[in-house]
Amino acid sequence: MISLKNHFIFIPLSTMNLKNDLILRAARGEELERYPVWLMRQAGRILPEYRSVRASLSGFKELVETPERAAEVTIQPVDILDVDAAIIFSDILVVPEAMGLPYEMIEKSGPYFKNVVRNENDLIKVEFQFDVEDRLSYVFEAIKIANKELGGRVPLIGFAGAPWTILCYMVEGRGSKTFSESRKLLYTNPILAHELLNRISLVTIAYLKQQIKAGAHMVQIFDSWAGILGADQYREFGLKYIEKIVDSIKDVPVTVFSKGAISSLNEICELNCNTVGLDWNMNISKVREMIGETKTIQGNLDPCALYGSHSEIEQSTISLMNSFSSKRHIVNLGHGVYPDIDPEKVKTFIKTVKNYELHF
Amino acid sequence: MISLKNHFIFIPLSTMNLKNDLILRAARGEELERYPVWLMRQAGRILPEYRSVRASLSGFKELVETPERAAEVTIQPVDILDVDAAIIFSDILVVPEAMGLPYEMIEKSGPYFKNVVRNENDLIKVEFQFDVEDRLSYVFEAIKIANKELGGRVPLIGFAGAPWTILCYMVEGRGSKTFSESRKLLYTNPILAHELLNRISLVTIAYLKQQIKAGAHMVQIFDSWAGILGADQYREFGLKYIEKIVDSIKDVPVTVFSKGAISSLNEICELNCNTVGLDWNMNISKVREMIGETKTIQGNLDPCALYGSHSEIEQSTISLMNSFSSKRHIVNLGHGVYPDIDPEKVKTFIKTVKNYELHF
Repeated sequence: MISLKNHFIFIPLSTMNLKNDLILRAARGEELERYPVWLMRQAGRILPEYRSVRASLSGFKELVETPERAAEVTIQPVDILDVDAAIIFSDILVVPEAMGLPYEMIEKSGPYFKNVVRNENDLIKVEFQFDVEDRLSYVFEAIKIANKELGGRVPLIGFAGAPWTILCYMVEGRGSKTFSESRKLLYTNPILAHELLNRISLVTIAYLKQQIKAGAHMVQIFDSWAGILGADQYREFGLKYIEKIVDSIKDVPVTVFSKGAISSLNEICELNCNTVGLDWNMNISKVREMIGETKTIQGNLDPCALYGSHSEIEQSTISLMNSFSSKRHIVNLGHGVYPDIDPEKVKTFIKTVKNYELHF
Repeated sequence: MISLKNHFIFIPLSTMNLKNDLILRAARGEELERYPVWLMRQAGRILPEYRSVRASLSGFKELVETPERAAEVTIQPVDILDVDAAIIFSDILVVPEAMGLPYEMIEKSGPYFKNVVRNENDLIKVEFQFDVEDRLSYVFEAIKIANKELGGRVPLIGFAGAPWTILCYMVEGRGSKTFSESRKLLYTNPILAHELLNRISLVTIAYLKQQIKAGAHMVQIFDSWAGILGADQYREFGLKYIEKIVDSIKDVPVTVFSKGAISSLNEICELNCNTVGLDWNMNISKVREMIGETKTIQGNLDPCALYGSHSEIEQSTISLMNSFSSKRHIVNLGHGVYPDIDPEKVKTFIKTVKNYELHF
């Protein structure tokens, strides 16, 4: 199935002045001189420059909510690591917060929501008809500043969590290995789950459209907890809502990254998106065999490979690219870069991709 | 590939007097009048009777280490839930503890190891040449008492963690979502990882043999963290050592449960084991199509299905069994039963399996 989006894509004005549009061309399956490369979580954690910005503020949330500083750390990996795209520094949890469920980010523990959604009474408080442009203005402002400071050097990626993953946090209220409270809802009150997913989808569509309006050149949907559902449940409670979102985004390439959803890859590839992200457990050759050339594949070096020596990193990165059978690839890790990775190792990864000769 | 074990199995004396040997026959692919059923983590947590035993002791570890009480909670689900097998109440972490890394079980948080293995100096302290029969005598004693009190009503399952999962805890020192410290070792010091895996395997073989000698009628190997490795790494650091173990167990049926290792199922099915456990994300019909009739499949109702109503549980359990295309099945959940499940719901699950008419 060939996505119409690849053929009749509308190119917004803002992308016309990009000096490096490699990742956009890769997403659309166009001609490439080499593979583009970036890293999930490249903005933050691993860079001393990030940690120094972070230390000057009261915490993670202040950084997310201060457009100038968010833009600053967004650009750092472009300046320091030389990646082919910037991704706006933010968090998927700004969406549930905008919907009326504020979160705290607790050091060494993760997100915590005081209010959760478990029943109809809780749902009443979940807002979805509000002015997204106003309530999440700090994100759009950060996008504008980042683009201005990037000056067209590389494209800027916007993003949002997938509705299922956002539901997981809204129901569970914190991270979890099994998210059994969230999965429980699918059995005990599927109507409530669908209503909540629908609300999240509506807000997410408006949110991504505003990111694009503000200047995001492409967007990625992160479904971090896709892998805890079997294929049938993921179709009903996951993909159905991702489909609504990707069908609403017309102007820029869309990437869907459903971590762990190996049994649903066929169905993910039927979505009207340009790129499918793979985690490090998925075998690229096998996936390519299965899905053909209809989608660009993003990924998927094991983030732990960056603990190896420089020459080992070079080897494993080359071996990853050797497994590609076409140019429809965006090189990335199969998960966010881990916080204790040496930035010099990341540079080796990036340089190896840039020096690799495309033979298609 | 047909496992030799199915054809030349040695039946120990202790199994000859079993009143219900359904699960053993299912494991061997023999004739059945109905599917056998049990639940992972059936001994503990969900039963008020368990919680009252647990409350009378200082903590989880005292229960594990007191044979009379461990035997008592082992038998509870047979008495109360009417399952077709008992599984000895214990923990996979008794093995690393016996090897010199004591653990604490911290309430609401999980296991914690004061000492971890990160380098050659740490490895020196990891013991593997000791008298397993003596050091883990409390487990074997519990097996003897449990069997005596069961009086042959149902078989007793013994178990151990797979070497990869045990390594994860020995290196990380606690639970983790990514076990990146453990995976890091595979890149930075694979020789150390192999040496550690080898030691764990040697102890695990001795441990399972002693369990069988003490009276375990079948054994299960739990690889809880299989799913965090890609297929290539799982082959090298996971399956290679499980193979050593299953090849050493001659007298009783062996089950391998590699949670999340969907990409390695083909290879798991080439192991010399009788039964392969599936987690709730794996589709039984697809797996059966892939592996044929060479193995018994164990699983795999979503543990969250037990949050549904009694009639929904009946429906989903029947629908699971309707997806079976042969009698080579042991019905179970696809993960341990969650602590807040109503035991009455578990009874509905078990009754539904027992009332289901086999049509093969």
